[in-house]
Amino acid sequence: MDDKALSDLLNRVAAGTIDHDQAMELLRTLPYADMGFARIDHHRELRTGFAEAIYSPGKSPDQMAKIALELFGHSSGAVVATRATKEQFEAIQQTVPGASFNEVAGLVVIRQAAVASSHLVSVVSAGTADQVPATECVATLEALGIKTEAMADLGVAGIHRILDKVPSLRLADVVVVVAGMEGALASVVAGLVSVPVVAVPTSAGYGAGVGGITPLLAMLNSCAPGVAVVNIDNGYGAAMFAATILRNKT
Amino acid sequence: MDDKALSDLLNRVAAGTIDHDQAMELLRTLPYADMGFARIDHHRELRTGFAEAIYSPGKSPDQMAKIALELFGHSSGAVVATRATKEQFEAIQQTVPGASFNEVAGLVVIRQAAVASSHLVSVVSAGTADQVPATECVATLEALGIKTEAMADLGVAGIHRILDKVPSLRLADVVVVVAGMEGALASVVAGLVSVPVVAVPTSAGYGAGVGGITPLLAMLNSCAPGVAVVNIDNGYGAAMFAATILRNKT
Amino acid sequence: MDDKALSDLLNRVAAGTIDHDQAMELLRTLPYADMGFARIDHHRELRTGFAEAIYSPGKSPDQMAKIALELFGHSSGAVVATRATKEQFEAIQQTVPGASFNEVAGLVVIRQAAVASSHLVSVVSAGTADQVPATECVATLEALGIKTEAMADLGVAGIHRILDKVPSLRLADVVVVVAGMEGALASVVAGLVSVPVVAVPTSAGYGAGVGGITPLLAMLNSCAPGVAVVNIDNGYGAAMFAATILRNKT
Amino acid sequence: MDDKALSDLLNRVAAGTIDHDQAMELLRTLPYADMGFARIDHHRELRTGFAEAIYSPGKSPDQMAKIALELFGHSSGAVVATRATKEQFEAIQQTVPGASFNEVAGLVVIRQAAVASSHLVSVVSAGTADQVPATECVATLEALGIKTEAMADLGVAGIHRILDKVPSLRLADVVVVVAGMEGALASVVAGLVSVPVVAVPTSAGYGAGVGGITPLLAMLNSCAPGVAVVNIDNGYGAAMFAATILRNKT
Amino acid sequence: MDDKALSDLLNRVAAGTIDHDQAMELLRTLPYADMGFARIDHHRELRTGFAEAIYSPGKSPDQMAKIALELFGHSSGAVVATRATKEQFEAIQQTVPGASFNEVAGLVVIRQAAVASSHLVSVVSAGTADQVPATECVATLEALGIKTEAMADLGVAGIHRILDKVPSLRLADVVVVVAGMEGALASVVAGLVSVPVVAVPTSAGYGAGVGGITPLLAMLNSCAPGVAVVNIDNGYGAAMFAATILRNKT
Amino acid sequence: MDDKALSDLLNRVAAGTIDHDQAMELLRTLPYADMGFARIDHHRELRTGFAEAIYSPGKSPDQMAKIALELFGHSSGAVVATRATKEQFEAIQQTVPGASFNEVAGLVVIRQAAVASSHLVSVVSAGTADQVPATECVATLEALGIKTEAMADLGVAGIHRILDKVPSLRLADVVVVVAGMEGALASVVAGLVSVPVVAVPTSAGYGAGVGGITPLLAMLNSCAPGVAVVNIDNGYGAAMFAATILRNKT
Amino acid sequence: MDDKALSDLLNRVAAGTIDHDQAMELLRTLPYADMGFARIDHHRELRTGFAEAIYSPGKSPDQMAKIALELFGHSSGAVVATRATKEQFEAIQQTVPGASFNEVAGLVVIRQAAVASSHLVSVVSAGTADQVPATECVATLEALGIKTEAMADLGVAGIHRILDKVPSLRLADVVVVVAGMEGALASVVAGLVSVPVVAVPTSAGYGAGVGGITPLLAMLNSCAPGVAVVNIDNGYGAAMFAATILRNKT
Amino acid sequence: MDDKALSDLLNRVAAGTIDHDQAMELLRTLPYADMGFARIDHHRELRTGFAEAIYSPGKSPDQMAKIALELFGHSSGAVVATRATKEQFEAIQQTVPGASFNEVAGLVVIRQAAVASSHLVSVVSAGTADQVPATECVATLEALGIKTEAMADLGVAGIHRILDKVPSLRLADVVVVVAGMEGALASVVAGLVSVPVVAVPTSAGYGAGVGGITPLLAMLNSCAPGVAVVNIDNGYGAAMFAATILRNKT
Repeated sequence: MDDKALSDLLNRVAAGTIDHDQAMELLRTLPYADMGFARIDHHRELRTGFAEAIYSPGKSPDQMAKIALELFGHSSGAVVATRATKEQFEAIQQTVPGASFNEVAGLVVIRQAAVASSHLVSVVSAGTADQVPATECVATLEALGIKTEAMADLGVAGIHRILDKVPSLRLADVVVVVAGMEGALASVVAGLVSVPVVAVPTSAGYGAGVGGITPLLAMLNSCAPGVAVVNIDNGYGAAMFAATILRNKT
Repeated sequence: MDDKALSDLLNRVAAGTIDHDQAMELLRTLPYADMGFARIDHHRELRTGFAEAIYSPGKSPDQMAKIALELFGHSSGAVVATRATKEQFEAIQQTVPGASFNEVAGLVVIRQAAVASSHLVSVVSAGTADQVPATECVATLEALGIKTEAMADLGVAGIHRILDKVPSLRLADVVVVVAGMEGALASVVAGLVSVPVVAVPTSAGYGAGVGGITPLLAMLNSCAPGVAVVNIDNGYGAAMFAATILRNKT
Repeated sequence: MDDKALSDLLNRVAAGTIDHDQAMELLRTLPYADMGFARIDHHRELRTGFAEAIYSPGKSPDQMAKIALELFGHSSGAVVATRATKEQFEAIQQTVPGASFNEVAGLVVIRQAAVASSHLVSVVSAGTADQVPATECVATLEALGIKTEAMADLGVAGIHRILDKVPSLRLADVVVVVAGMEGALASVVAGLVSVPVVAVPTSAGYGAGVGGITPLLAMLNSCAPGVAVVNIDNGYGAAMFAATILRNKT
Repeated sequence: MDDKALSDLLNRVAAGTIDHDQAMELLRTLPYADMGFARIDHHRELRTGFAEAIYSPGKSPDQMAKIALELFGHSSGAVVATRATKEQFEAIQQTVPGASFNEVAGLVVIRQAAVASSHLVSVVSAGTADQVPATECVATLEALGIKTEAMADLGVAGIHRILDKVPSLRLADVVVVVAGMEGALASVVAGLVSVPVVAVPTSAGYGAGVGGITPLLAMLNSCAPGVAVVNIDNGYGAAMFAATILRNKT
Repeated sequence: MDDKALSDLLNRVAAGTIDHDQAMELLRTLPYADMGFARIDHHRELRTGFAEAIYSPGKSPDQMAKIALELFGHSSGAVVATRATKEQFEAIQQTVPGASFNEVAGLVVIRQAAVASSHLVSVVSAGTADQVPATECVATLEALGIKTEAMADLGVAGIHRILDKVPSLRLADVVVVVAGMEGALASVVAGLVSVPVVAVPTSAGYGAGVGGITPLLAMLNSCAPGVAVVNIDNGYGAAMFAATILRNKT
Repeated sequence: MDDKALSDLLNRVAAGTIDHDQAMELLRTLPYADMGFARIDHHRELRTGFAEAIYSPGKSPDQMAKIALELFGHSSGAVVATRATKEQFEAIQQTVPGASFNEVAGLVVIRQAAVASSHLVSVVSAGTADQVPATECVATLEALGIKTEAMADLGVAGIHRILDKVPSLRLADVVVVVAGMEGALASVVAGLVSVPVVAVPTSAGYGAGVGGITPLLAMLNSCAPGVAVVNIDNGYGAAMFAATILRNKT
Repeated sequence: MDDKALSDLLNRVAAGTIDHDQAMELLRTLPYADMGFARIDHHRELRTGFAEAIYSPGKSPDQMAKIALELFGHSSGAVVATRATKEQFEAIQQTVPGASFNEVAGLVVIRQAAVASSHLVSVVSAGTADQVPATECVATLEALGIKTEAMADLGVAGIHRILDKVPSLRLADVVVVVAGMEGALASVVAGLVSVPVVAVPTSAGYGAGVGGITPLLAMLNSCAPGVAVVNIDNGYGAAMFAATILRNKT
Repeated sequence: MDDKALSDLLNRVAAGTIDHDQAMELLRTLPYADMGFARIDHHRELRTGFAEAIYSPGKSPDQMAKIALELFGHSSGAVVATRATKEQFEAIQQTVPGASFNEVAGLVVIRQAAVASSHLVSVVSAGTADQVPATECVATLEALGIKTEAMADLGVAGIHRILDKVPSLRLADVVVVVAGMEGALASVVAGLVSVPVVAVPTSAGYGAGVGGITPLLAMLNSCAPGVAVVNIDNGYGAAMFAATILRNKT
């Protein structure tokens, strides 16, 4: 229920074309009307600008298909499902034929937004082991209609590889840094650019990497200002945060 | 050395007005000339847009004063020192008379930028125990010339307090959420606004709060997209991240 | 041995109808007679009001069947086995034909109590990934004869979904909140109701969720009073705690 | 704004005695009117049954006094401040003369409720080192008008001490167990009573006790059902949880 | 109440010299009569062989003195208070004049047992920083009347120092190993002797020693069988464990 | 090389029947002659009283068989392999036909010692989920010729079950307590007996049990003296520690 | 681009044989020319002395083969791939026929360096469970042309085994110690030799070993100077560190 | 007892000038004679090349003085005490007048070695907050007669500062990297030099830095080979490790 609907309702009360009790019921939960399942995402889209994504783990293929159809019918922009299996995707595809699947990232895109802006997000990753979250990030951004440039294998042990990319990096509006192991790439990049750096620690590595906790802590302790961090392996979250920055930028 | 200086150098080589070996030496370290201590921040400002801040713990008052003077002389924008003691501030003030001090946050502002933009950052905090990092964030943003609105005591246990603030929150370009204990405020706010939410976990609380680790982890696991996180109690870092977003926004 | 048995014994000693040494032996372990395996649960039921549940992991199907039969024969109320596999259930079913199985929760109910009270427990969960412990909680409560209302998918990122449920929530005598990720739902709900909130952190989520430790810590640090917490994924434990509250309520 | 106020408003719209735009404005934020600071606790009391408590650390004596006065003026029941220093108490006392102070627990009671019920909470603690949170729990319960029985020094290494107390424990409506070290007391007690057991881990102990994390984890892993846990040293939280159980019990 | 008392009671019942109800009351709590505070330790001494020790932190000097007097009056063997301050000791000394104080260990000995056996415990420590728990262990053993040999500064980095002590170590009935840092001394010693090795990790060291957690974990992972571990810095606990072994040895 | 060999060598030097340089070489490494692989365990048996056990994980069946044969040929007492698979056992059995296998514990016994003493070890466990380490402990003790009494399912939530066993427990020379979840059984038992209690934390349980860390920490923080702890699930280690106590007891 | 190339470029500028803008472009990224993927390792080899290794997890066999060919073509020394599967090796072997595979370590050696020096590295391990990282270390060193001596099964519980090896250990130029469980071997060895000791903690062991964290922490807290530590199970890293020491030694 | 002493002893046995039993006694503990306290370090110096250092925390000034005198009298090279207070230093100075004190590092140097080699160690630190361990490292190296170059304030957020130092860094034989926060400096430096990099994590920083655990983990997970790590803040250990490398280098 938006402002227009509210205004209409009041007009109907004033005009006596709606019953007092019916109006009471509608207004009790306002501005948060009882939407039921089918209306959930529509409201999210109005409120935060993006439809709700489907987090796939633990959902049956059948549930996936039903939720996807629901979201597809009630939103106008991109709809995605993260961390989906091929089986989950196929169930969706039978219900929503246009859905596509990025197998590396496990990302289902049910409706891809048209490229709507001239903004660019650079997605920089440290090693080939970081490609799953990096790909999830790139694919999510593309689903939202945002241009991306992916730069892989920029480990800090070969600092020249990063320095060579500085001119490219300076063209970006937001830089997403995806790195495991010691996670130092975020600090180095943030010291070289003047745009926001969104850091994604990854679970790549072993031993004292503790499943991504080490790069997570390292990125939070970055000596470079202009870095903020999302959850381990959360390429989707970094993409959404970058998109939130860009949506509000003109 | 910027592009112009490089171009000039090449012209001098072509013109034979500079010696081959001298040119070799200059170019070897290009584009990063040996600057020495006094030029450090000047370069940071050019590269990332903000002068380097002084992290005060462990520095003697005398060192503080010298570094402050150095930064003051070589930068054009705001210069700040974080987590300073009163004694450190007084040493700075004797060297750079215009310096001011925010005692709650321990923030020394050596040159405050003029308000340069119409952007607004809302700094939302959960309880009175979160006021030190919240104040550090507000004071840093103001030093950078950015308008702020501070909203304190918005705990999620009284959700109506937050809902009441939604119209105000929707005027902000960036929202900074400062919260200890369970850190849930970040998720709730991020579900209500369409701008980037920068989350600052605080060490407020006790027991299983583990010095801020609990809200840190909770914020990283936020079920709401559009949230990114900085280090525990790092109000300065959140301010710098918000400023980085806004500097690139028109 | 209860008070009557003790009194009888003393009478027999006084009457000389029991030998001094026999009486010595009986009294040595009083008031906790050696019951042997078969009497274990009967005593638990008398003492705490509920029969002992069977924790299934690590038990052979054959062991499961024997223990189930034992409990079934010596208790009058509900008997359940938690975290059972289908194979374990089938072994029980062959011995105790009336046993039923909730596959989502892995809960075997060997004898379901009749609905004995007008009390209601609301089991609120944050996402579809939390359904296993939520279902375990609901099914356990129903086995105990307690009415439940399950409300799924009430994530705090869409706070209106929770607010809409407030009237329903206010009808409950106890609210169980089941949530993973940042676990904020417990704080938000506890701020809206006046009944006890039992929080179940879940292992849903990834990365810095650390297998449920993050929502566990967050719930323990809830800024809302009226929240107490059980172990990660312990839907059974929350049900038993709620039942303990309700059994003593009239 | 309650249902009556809403009904009145609709009647005024229907009658044309209120302007369309004014009505729009009022309804936009309904049912959560902008209350401002002074009305915060009043609302909490209505919604959850208890006024908000003051968490004292980090607040100046002056702030304490102002908040205390505010709460005192807008609530009808007990008002407390937890973890207060003597200096904070004295500032409150000057503003609200009737305030009293429990120095062991650091609890300020600004208005103590009359004993309103026949309910009893037993507060059982394991050692003398657990007395601060145990006292905080007892004093908070008494402030709320609830009868308590404190039983100290019931360590599980002398199990007979606990068994002797079973008859007393069975008179309680809720048992609060306060224990540090290995925290085993919660399991033992919960196996002996049929009422809810609220467990408070304490930071008493040293070495591998890790500041209370060990009893916290132990209590969460209790093999006895009917136990739920609050934060380390959180005697106040246990009292509030017990009070929430009892308020709804007749 | 011991077996003789129970037998007497039955005889009185048979003889009719005790009332049925009185006998009922006495037997209800048997074999654990309600002893009250003053009888606590007496019972512990009968049951486990040693009187209860006083854990001093958090107790007032006055409380210390009262408890000490109580224990002194109701036990026949050694009575000790651990981690006492000088102030606490002086309060005890005024009440129980014969009490003595080991300042390094903070151990008050209220009645020292006579040397009752020919058993020997070697207390081996790795560095001078481990002397507080090593001294606590030695002083506790001596209070119990057990002979000790202290061997300090046996770091594994100078393995010959340990090898030189092997002949001495082989005279011991139990070896207590007290070590911080990497805690390797326990493994090395356990590989050289054929008696039980009780390991005490200490909080000596810094950085990644994590307050004693590192040697604790290392000792638990000892590749040498015949090692068991007590809490960090718990010299008292090691002494009691050694004494328990020796009391049962002839 | 033992004392006799050393004495002989000196005699040969004095008699001139051994070359100066040869004697030098032999003495350089004395008293630890180069034994090579085949003599390893023989020496361990002399030094610590028990042959080295084979830790099976990571060893090929072929390696297992060779090591087992080696140990069998050079030791006179029991030889065991822990955590063996059936495949590993079968390889051993082909080489050392008398080897037997306890499948629950994965323990291969290559030569079982005759029952050599009248000592008794009680192995008490808390739940059926603790049976693997409990069985490993019992089977190892039996291999060493020590009598055992296993008591399963003595959870602290039914304290009477433990109290009933007190007379039996008091017959033991050592009590091993095997428990997961909150690990409280060790404290309760240690408060009831006067012999050493060796505690084995187990990884049984889930969620905040953290793979056995919770009972490990709880047992280390036991409020009862007379408890020492071995590694998680280390039933073998507890058996060896108990055997070390008993070997030195007459 | 090396110094000669830079000098040539300047000469061409002076001679006017290169365009000003072209020279600008080349110099902008100097001394780190944009090399593209194929030149990455060549540069690493020049800069640090060793070609980059391939970390295999997460790479497809096809990717492995392409990277291996690339490295093989642009480096003159050893080329290795760590933690490779047999399938990955076979893909490499089809492209670079001379590649060999160490199956225990999962190490692919694409071009083995000739033995170039008389230096020796001793690789000492504590148990058979440590053989994977120990073998990785030995095989990497051999690929680099460095002589090794492997000494297995030197557990500290049998200290004589280590002492016997002291003469051999003293011949080494670097000692690598590979150990799990309590990791004490590093301290013992470092106390016996005068060369650098590189410690590799391993994930061998269970329970409180926490996947190698225990030996890692223990080695970092070694009481013996002359020890430095690499990541858990990182035999490759220890080999590279040893090789770095030796390359600079004459 | 060295080889010459052993040879002499054998000669005396052959010559009959020493008693058989006396020789037995001497040889039993060979090659590790019982040295007593005064000879400890002399032996360490022979075995590992450096005298034992004094770790000062927990030692009385008097103990410090005695140990220092002992070490001074029995070693020929440098003698140092780490983490000493001024009071401890003054006690030493009264006994060993030539002792000097570095107050920043708390390092007492009792006899400084002459500069004996042409080797150079670069000690690179990231921020001014890292100066205590960096100074401890430099001062220890100087005490050992090794040349050092200290380079402070080389944070990775200003990567040019590091690149500028590459020519200097390439002159070093070993590089020690001292860094807190995210510890990324070790990886960056190790990617630029061909000599061993010894990394010292520091406890500088706050919040999620967890007292140095974050840079420690990050350095262990360095993506650059050629890095090994010592304990947090352990500048002394890094110096000793570097000295061990250099002593064996010609």
